[in-house]
Amino acid sequence: MGLHSTADAAAIRASIRSGAFGGHTSGMAPGKLQCNLAILPAAHALDFLRFCQRNPKPCPVVGVSETGDPMLPTLGVDIDIRTDVPRYRIFRDGVLTGEVTDIRDLWTDDLVSVALGCSFTFENALVRAGIPVRHIEDGVNVPMFRTNIPLVPAGPFNGHMVVTMRPIPEAMVDKAHGISARFPQAHGAPIATGDPRALGIADLAKPDYGDAVAVKPGEVPVFWACGVTPQNVLRDARLPLCITHSPGHMLISDVAEDAETPIYQS
Amino acid sequence: MGLHSTADAAAIRASIRSGAFGGHTSGMAPGKLQCNLAILPAAHALDFLRFCQRNPKPCPVVGVSETGDPMLPTLGVDIDIRTDVPRYRIFRDGVLTGEVTDIRDLWTDDLVSVALGCSFTFENALVRAGIPVRHIEDGVNVPMFRTNIPLVPAGPFNGHMVVTMRPIPEAMVDKAHGISARFPQAHGAPIATGDPRALGIADLAKPDYGDAVAVKPGEVPVFWACGVTPQNVLRDARLPLCITHSPGHMLISDVAEDAETPIYQS
Repeated sequence: MGLHSTADAAAIRASIRSGAFGGHTSGMAPGKLQCNLAILPAAHALDFLRFCQRNPKPCPVVGVSETGDPMLPTLGVDIDIRTDVPRYRIFRDGVLTGEVTDIRDLWTDDLVSVALGCSFTFENALVRAGIPVRHIEDGVNVPMFRTNIPLVPAGPFNGHMVVTMRPIPEAMVDKAHGISARFPQAHGAPIATGDPRALGIADLAKPDYGDAVAVKPGEVPVFWACGVTPQNVLRDARLPLCITHSPGHMLISDVAEDAETPIYQS
Repeated sequence: MGLHSTADAAAIRASIRSGAFGGHTSGMAPGKLQCNLAILPAAHALDFLRFCQRNPKPCPVVGVSETGDPMLPTLGVDIDIRTDVPRYRIFRDGVLTGEVTDIRDLWTDDLVSVALGCSFTFENALVRAGIPVRHIEDGVNVPMFRTNIPLVPAGPFNGHMVVTMRPIPEAMVDKAHGISARFPQAHGAPIATGDPRALGIADLAKPDYGDAVAVKPGEVPVFWACGVTPQNVLRDARLPLCITHSPGHMLISDVAEDAETPIYQS
């Protein structure tokens, strides 16, 4: 289909909207903020925003639509959330009922879209700084683990944090911490470093989601809050309807990933 | 009354709750995050949180209560928002109708409290770094100005940004920028430096709020987003009821002002 990863965000979204592209967005539109997505009924939106405010590391809110309006102007030009994400998951009463590439037929006047920062942002910064990111080198998904870290509840939203793990050479751990801390809109600094058992993780070779990667001699496992957290929390809240992106199929915004605030300035 | 500025946050809140202290909170409980306050009906809370998300520099949300619950556990131990702020302003339909030290008789099951970061946080950091802060040196209020910078609207909330101005020695401007940028929960980096006319400010000697301070030779006026912005926006939205803190009479939280996230960990 001729779409290069370096195409600009608008061109990629146009390709997604037309149906020409429907794949993973990792590495696309370099420098642009990519987003996790949660669409839910307005009746639950205040509680969900409270939940995100109380759990900002796994749930950094970068955009919120008007109720019933499918556009997200604060994240870019002509972003229609019904068509501009490559793949969506539909949950009804907490059950995954389908995976689609277009949600125009599901859109109603009472839906609110919430965009959340994602780890692609700080991973790009780590790579630029010469810090190896194992799962990118290996061409697999990042390993993700459920933890024993309780979230701060709000309304029907509650649960435990999911984390990603990246093995970092011991001498580079402080640098990785400092770099990712500069991106609070994308999970920020690691939430833990070292012993996985302190987080209730029994075996790094058996991630709950994604793929296992090797932790080599001289490397330390470093754990970051993960955007799967809100996905699980939304599922467990058993809302009548909730729509998310499919893993890896993110919303590509027009906002620079190193912007101080995630508000598009035309 | 024997209350020292170095008393801990809980002791100061107890003194406020008992009525023993009702003054300005500047410089009190050093190292603790102080907050602007907005209390509004739940029917408008989703729009207000959307407004804050879209205008994070003037409106950095650091805490949101449950609907109808006067406690703010994510900001500290036993914080009762009805009694623990030294002075409140009551607005009805956009009109200031009173200033009180206790809002227990006004509290209803449909109110939501929103706490917002305040400039005390980065000012403390500037002072620690040896950067002079003129209005603190002069013992007056910071000068504040209305600007021509439009806010991003949400529901009934809209308007223009209010900024504070601090004259900074030219050689220290970059350092002041870098320090305040580390506090996104407290207005973050300056929004402008230099010519006030670029912001629609006619005369630095005539602030719209607070007190004028001298800009001396070799100093540059530096402008930060200001917490008066949401106060004006709330007033102009003419909600049936809205309660704010009185200027300078802030909520003192138990959260460290340099915490990565404004969530109290007991």
